[in-house]
Amino acid sequence: MSDVQGDLALRFPQNPIVTPADVRPSRPDLTVQCVLNPGAFRYDGRTGLLLRVAERPAQEPAWVTAVVRRSNGSEGIETIRFRRGDPDLDASDPRVVTYRGDAYLTTLSHLRLAWSDDGIRFRVDERPTLEGSGPQETFGIEDCRVTQLGATYCLTYSAVFARGYGVGLITTQDWVHFERHGMILPTPNKDSAVFPEKIGGAYRILHRPTSATFGGSDIWTAQSPDLLHWGDHRCIACTRPGQWDSARIGAGAAPILTDHGWLAIYHGADDSNRYCLGVLLLDHDDPTRVIARGPNPVMEPSADYERRGFFGNVVFSNGHVVDGDRVTVYYGASDEVVCGAELQISALLDQLNPVDKSMAPTRPAPDPSPTQ
Amino acid sequence: MSDVQGDLALRFPQNPIVTPADVRPSRPDLTVQCVLNPGAFRYDGRTGLLLRVAERPAQEPAWVTAVVRRSNGSEGIETIRFRRGDPDLDASDPRVVTYRGDAYLTTLSHLRLAWSDDGIRFRVDERPTLEGSGPQETFGIEDCRVTQLGATYCLTYSAVFARGYGVGLITTQDWVHFERHGMILPTPNKDSAVFPEKIGGAYRILHRPTSATFGGSDIWTAQSPDLLHWGDHRCIACTRPGQWDSARIGAGAAPILTDHGWLAIYHGADDSNRYCLGVLLLDHDDPTRVIARGPNPVMEPSADYERRGFFGNVVFSNGHVVDGDRVTVYYGASDEVVCGAELQISALLDQLNPVDKSMAPTRPAPDPSPTQ
Repeated sequence: MSDVQGDLALRFPQNPIVTPADVRPSRPDLTVQCVLNPGAFRYDGRTGLLLRVAERPAQEPAWVTAVVRRSNGSEGIETIRFRRGDPDLDASDPRVVTYRGDAYLTTLSHLRLAWSDDGIRFRVDERPTLEGSGPQETFGIEDCRVTQLGATYCLTYSAVFARGYGVGLITTQDWVHFERHGMILPTPNKDSAVFPEKIGGAYRILHRPTSATFGGSDIWTAQSPDLLHWGDHRCIACTRPGQWDSARIGAGAAPILTDHGWLAIYHGADDSNRYCLGVLLLDHDDPTRVIARGPNPVMEPSADYERRGFFGNVVFSNGHVVDGDRVTVYYGASDEVVCGAELQISALLDQLNPVDKSMAPTRPAPDPSPTQ
Repeated sequence: MSDVQGDLALRFPQNPIVTPADVRPSRPDLTVQCVLNPGAFRYDGRTGLLLRVAERPAQEPAWVTAVVRRSNGSEGIETIRFRRGDPDLDASDPRVVTYRGDAYLTTLSHLRLAWSDDGIRFRVDERPTLEGSGPQETFGIEDCRVTQLGATYCLTYSAVFARGYGVGLITTQDWVHFERHGMILPTPNKDSAVFPEKIGGAYRILHRPTSATFGGSDIWTAQSPDLLHWGDHRCIACTRPGQWDSARIGAGAAPILTDHGWLAIYHGADDSNRYCLGVLLLDHDDPTRVIARGPNPVMEPSADYERRGFFGNVVFSNGHVVDGDRVTVYYGASDEVVCGAELQISALLDQLNPVDKSMAPTRPAPDPSPTQ
């Protein structure tokens, strides 16, 4: 199966299915800049999306703004303005502004539910469902994965604040009452998805730390007895120099159980920040073992709404629902709108290669004298 | 109490107490470059140090070398040589060599026991006690904290490999048999010490992640039901711009229980990589709460062996033993030799200030228009 875009994804003709115009701002002094990167799940016969809604204050030409949630009791927000052209200001990235070594976000994100009977037309709730809370979410909460474990939905999201970003955990059974469990993986970590069942008696998770001196932004696993505490961290898949996933990789939504193992859809970015989706196949009984990895993206930014927007050339998915051989991927396009596409699991499996050992986390035996 | 060096530490007149000349190489083709950063403990009436021994191959003038442990079954090591002056080579840091974006260590570290009856004169074991093992320790193991929990000693150390560095856990009861528990905190993390008792029913730890986009190298806490799995990560103390601990801070050995709370000796580095020791006081029942923080270092590089060496201007401690009001700190000086000094707990407490709220992890309400 392939559509006009030339990859393995059959995009919804209705794309984009949710845009900022569909989302009511959370406060009268904010506008919705982007709606993106939804978690996805089924509940009570409907499809739910947990959208990331990124808001910012009204823009003035002479100023660059950043926005921070207060955590000192009053639950308001603070707008920080920087004069455009200030030599101490770096505003080259539309998502982040850096001033004298301190980084701020230009938007503040919360999570909001949207519901659909057909999986295509969604009605977005009028109010935020989950907002940042406490001192470690003052820059917002983002990019939530939703994994169903029995009757419990397990939400893993990025908690962002001035001192870093880690993975927060919230659980719910009814999508009305939510329980917060704090930060389960410390900074710098994001792109974290819990497996939909225990393996070898333990919960498992994929996560994405970012290392500075050694390594980079790779996919790791960990295990847990209780979802709250995690250990046995292992690096299982690394960026591939010179390829489409050379700069950063990170998990999408929960891996999908197939007859061949756990199929994990992941995102990869290259050195020019172009984000595509690819696939990994993990051993059924030992998901720290990568059996196979797709050589090429299974989906890449090609439609107009994927190439142009708030941050162009991005397809990024952290939510999908599965029906037999079909996986419906919900994804953020250009960090600005929400879209949908269908992929066939059998087609994803078909194009996998046994994993190239040179891409495994252990560095291969180096050339004894690379400069001779 | 103060000695001629002008800080609160009374240095051993015998310093340095262990030097590379006291340590037999682990292999005939390696030399011991540095012995540093010991964990410290009492066992069976003696004082034990778990030294970090950093080795490297014989040096040739025209080459810069790095060294890696194999993890593919054969337990050997690999030397990588780079031609000095190669434009793709950055060898400006004696500890790390970077070639075409990949970082390597110039030395390979293992851990080795040394024993003493008087806490001053140590006999170093002939062979390594613990070496790197498996794919996530190919660059060695470093800087072990030792915490006694009942009859069990809990060893937390830096596990280093090409894709990052995390915190590994090993336990022992007799210092002969050791049990490895894998990586308990993922990359990039080090400087991790377990508290010597449970608090509120949970084990507690201090750790030091390093964040890139937001924040930096701060001290965090976490808690655990079993020492193996960790959650509820919180940033509790941050670097202080313009001060002696402006660039990086990290825990020393296990915090010391006092009548006023948990006294944590930590290291801080400034922007010129000068490493000093300072102190934090944490709430007895809630060690995520910083009660007070020392304004100045309690120990700073001043003796000749602290100012000159493999990496000069460094005092770094991850091991101490406590007798009443006296804490004997064992420390690495200039990343090259092991030294000892005494500090009085009462004197450390006396110079503490109630914590400056502006240094707390939550960024203060920002100036609404800092460039106006």
